[in-house]
Amino acid sequence: MRNPQLNRHGELIHLLSTEGLPRAVIVQILDTAAQFVSVNDREVKKVPLLRGKSVFNLFFENSTRTRTTFEIAATRLSADVFNLDIARSSTAKGETLLDTIANLSAMAADIFVVRHSESGAPYLIAQHVAPHVHVINAGDGRHAHPTQGLLDMYTIRHYKKDFANLSVAIVGDVLHSRVARSDIHALTTLGCPDVRVVGPRTLVPGDLSHLGVRVCHSLEEGIRDCDVVIALRLQNERMSGALLPSSQEFHQAFGLTPQRLRWAKPDAIVMHPGPVNRGVEIDSSVVDGTQSVVLPQVTFGIAVRMAVMSIIAGNEA
Amino acid sequence: MRNPQLNRHGELIHLLSTEGLPRAVIVQILDTAAQFVSVNDREVKKVPLLRGKSVFNLFFENSTRTRTTFEIAATRLSADVFNLDIARSSTAKGETLLDTIANLSAMAADIFVVRHSESGAPYLIAQHVAPHVHVINAGDGRHAHPTQGLLDMYTIRHYKKDFANLSVAIVGDVLHSRVARSDIHALTTLGCPDVRVVGPRTLVPGDLSHLGVRVCHSLEEGIRDCDVVIALRLQNERMSGALLPSSQEFHQAFGLTPQRLRWAKPDAIVMHPGPVNRGVEIDSSVVDGTQSVVLPQVTFGIAVRMAVMSIIAGNEA
Amino acid sequence: MRNPQLNRHGELIHLLSTEGLPRAVIVQILDTAAQFVSVNDREVKKVPLLRGKSVFNLFFENSTRTRTTFEIAATRLSADVFNLDIARSSTAKGETLLDTIANLSAMAADIFVVRHSESGAPYLIAQHVAPHVHVINAGDGRHAHPTQGLLDMYTIRHYKKDFANLSVAIVGDVLHSRVARSDIHALTTLGCPDVRVVGPRTLVPGDLSHLGVRVCHSLEEGIRDCDVVIALRLQNERMSGALLPSSQEFHQAFGLTPQRLRWAKPDAIVMHPGPVNRGVEIDSSVVDGTQSVVLPQVTFGIAVRMAVMSIIAGNEA
Repeated sequence: MRNPQLNRHGELIHLLSTEGLPRAVIVQILDTAAQFVSVNDREVKKVPLLRGKSVFNLFFENSTRTRTTFEIAATRLSADVFNLDIARSSTAKGETLLDTIANLSAMAADIFVVRHSESGAPYLIAQHVAPHVHVINAGDGRHAHPTQGLLDMYTIRHYKKDFANLSVAIVGDVLHSRVARSDIHALTTLGCPDVRVVGPRTLVPGDLSHLGVRVCHSLEEGIRDCDVVIALRLQNERMSGALLPSSQEFHQAFGLTPQRLRWAKPDAIVMHPGPVNRGVEIDSSVVDGTQSVVLPQVTFGIAVRMAVMSIIAGNEA
Repeated sequence: MRNPQLNRHGELIHLLSTEGLPRAVIVQILDTAAQFVSVNDREVKKVPLLRGKSVFNLFFENSTRTRTTFEIAATRLSADVFNLDIARSSTAKGETLLDTIANLSAMAADIFVVRHSESGAPYLIAQHVAPHVHVINAGDGRHAHPTQGLLDMYTIRHYKKDFANLSVAIVGDVLHSRVARSDIHALTTLGCPDVRVVGPRTLVPGDLSHLGVRVCHSLEEGIRDCDVVIALRLQNERMSGALLPSSQEFHQAFGLTPQRLRWAKPDAIVMHPGPVNRGVEIDSSVVDGTQSVVLPQVTFGIAVRMAVMSIIAGNEA
Repeated sequence: MRNPQLNRHGELIHLLSTEGLPRAVIVQILDTAAQFVSVNDREVKKVPLLRGKSVFNLFFENSTRTRTTFEIAATRLSADVFNLDIARSSTAKGETLLDTIANLSAMAADIFVVRHSESGAPYLIAQHVAPHVHVINAGDGRHAHPTQGLLDMYTIRHYKKDFANLSVAIVGDVLHSRVARSDIHALTTLGCPDVRVVGPRTLVPGDLSHLGVRVCHSLEEGIRDCDVVIALRLQNERMSGALLPSSQEFHQAFGLTPQRLRWAKPDAIVMHPGPVNRGVEIDSSVVDGTQSVVLPQVTFGIAVRMAVMSIIAGNEA
């Protein structure tokens, strides 16, 4: 089966997952984003790369923050952005997902940004859209959140330059995290030799070795001598089951405190996809501390989304 | 009484209904839309016809799809569009409809796009707005949905060229349908000699002869040798009463299947205002079949709305 | 403590309250707005003063009308406007207000327009934003609504030219009104010698003399020989307690009728912040009468908000 994200020339036409993205494509995205980070300075005008193009935000699952980052990115590229209150729209009148998509395509959409609670929904959409339409996955179930994964790669490259000798620890609720999956695939493709997933057995499945990562159920072992610590949000809203830890239990065993952070390298950076649960997966003093790059992640996220949109809009199916 | 849609020169200043629209005005709208369909190609820039103008979407009744089509049309004309969440706004604080309108007019509105559950609400608004403000009815109660009627005319003209020898059947829930009313008035004005309304007695009133249409309570008789079949959405959400058919009963007697469609002419086109209830008023294989023009209707709908906005914005009260 | 609204050069960088605003700054805002009122004519293009800037509407308390006025003002200045459905956003996931603000700042925001039910929330935000970000208070609790206060000053100056010999009566629910507070501070700073607050004891506290206003519990005494009557909205939705008057009781004692308005000067203007409760604080015939300037207030409000945004965006912290 051909990779649905690429056309026959190997060019990116949809962004559905970091899994299966060739290294060259990831590097192209990061390099393009780097131009926007410098260009996207307060003194510089918006770029007209997507002038006259229409971007539709289709958030079947609500996320004001992520939707806003895509809206900003598209606006900076001079696209027209349409936010569909999809939860209140025709799908509520019994219309199928694919009919909704076909109708919006007929309104001359160029890019669909899709968030959906069902894993795979953006793939289904990408399979059925007209050739001129591009799909970006903004998070599907527990499966993937590729723009978050790519902005994490951008952030790591920005601070650490190279992936070749890097140790990266992903700490917390790996089980429910589409961010963790997207980070792992991207890190592996970029040649990161040491990726660890760290957390209690209930949140970090033991059978992840096929992903090329090391599983650690001890925080000290997990972040020891790491260059990068990625704390995940404890997804209380996705959890269920008596075996799962409480916020307090999690913090006692795996919460990132200034003391514990000393297990990592002295120049390790601390990342988090947000929104942060202060005092649960990470202490306030770490979020606000000198090693935290949480806010630069947000800024880089706009540039990475601009890069993805401008690249896919230029490629034909 | 003067036609509230026209100024003293007979030019369109509001679009409230297809009833009472002169033939010349309808043709002007369709001809203008045709220019946008060709211009509104992916390679062509937006047109600046409404640059600096303000379009307010006032949807007292929620309709994400229709609102979006107006938002897209206005944006393609380079207008500024403001979507008011009117259900949560001042009207909820006890403000009258006319005070809301007067206030928005004072904010230098140019066009109000109004959807309202009460028939006649857009007329009331048009009577009270300042002379520079134009009103477009985006659906009022069971009364009218003139832009849908006009895009249906555009679609029929596109595929059939001329209305002079055409047979058009409107099938289904005519009783609750503002689309049916808008289609009937426009077809009659454009000289269509044979318009039929088709459905069970509970959904198709017998006393429609004053509209110049033929009432048929048999699908075979209703669509026999037709050039155009317009299937209406079964408006379950507007229905009440024990005498009304269930979805299943309706489909058995009046659902459009491939077999039944053979009663119409071999080159008949099938239309539907959407969203479609697949398997109720129309079979999936018909929606997706070669005679279906459901998706072109959507594309033409953007162009027709652009045409209406650009025409009324150029005329003085 | 330095005035948080001004930089070290005394230039406006945030608009949080009319209290503490120097006379020169208020006059600068009114003079700038006057340019937009003439420029902001239907024949004139939008001004590009904020092209490429990002304005975020953060309405923690819903107000479609006020939000729309800021959206229109920012759009007329060619800014990009992002409406955050903040009630459904990350704050609902337990994120702190300041983390939300820090994240949005990292998305290259230039101006935050904040409405919040808690008095002081915009101050807190202004204290923590990055130096390039500006905050406008769009209403905080019962505390302040400075753009409403400034548009009231604009309106008074427009009709009465000078504040030096003016008598202004503010009538109604002063207790719950952030508008009254903002008006009083601005009027005092602009040198208005006679400001009266008028209403029943339950709605007009007796201890307002420190604000330099006269308290009147009789409407006749309160508006006698006034040049300006500002009727406040009876804020039923903010009220509680058995001692408060019903709408009917209020109207009998303090409702503005044509007869009572004759107690004021013959050329007195009547203002109201909207939305109006017709027949409660003010009669329909007064709202629609020749002395009413309620709709010009709305128009001037757009210009005043344009003025505030364009001034603060040009000043460095």
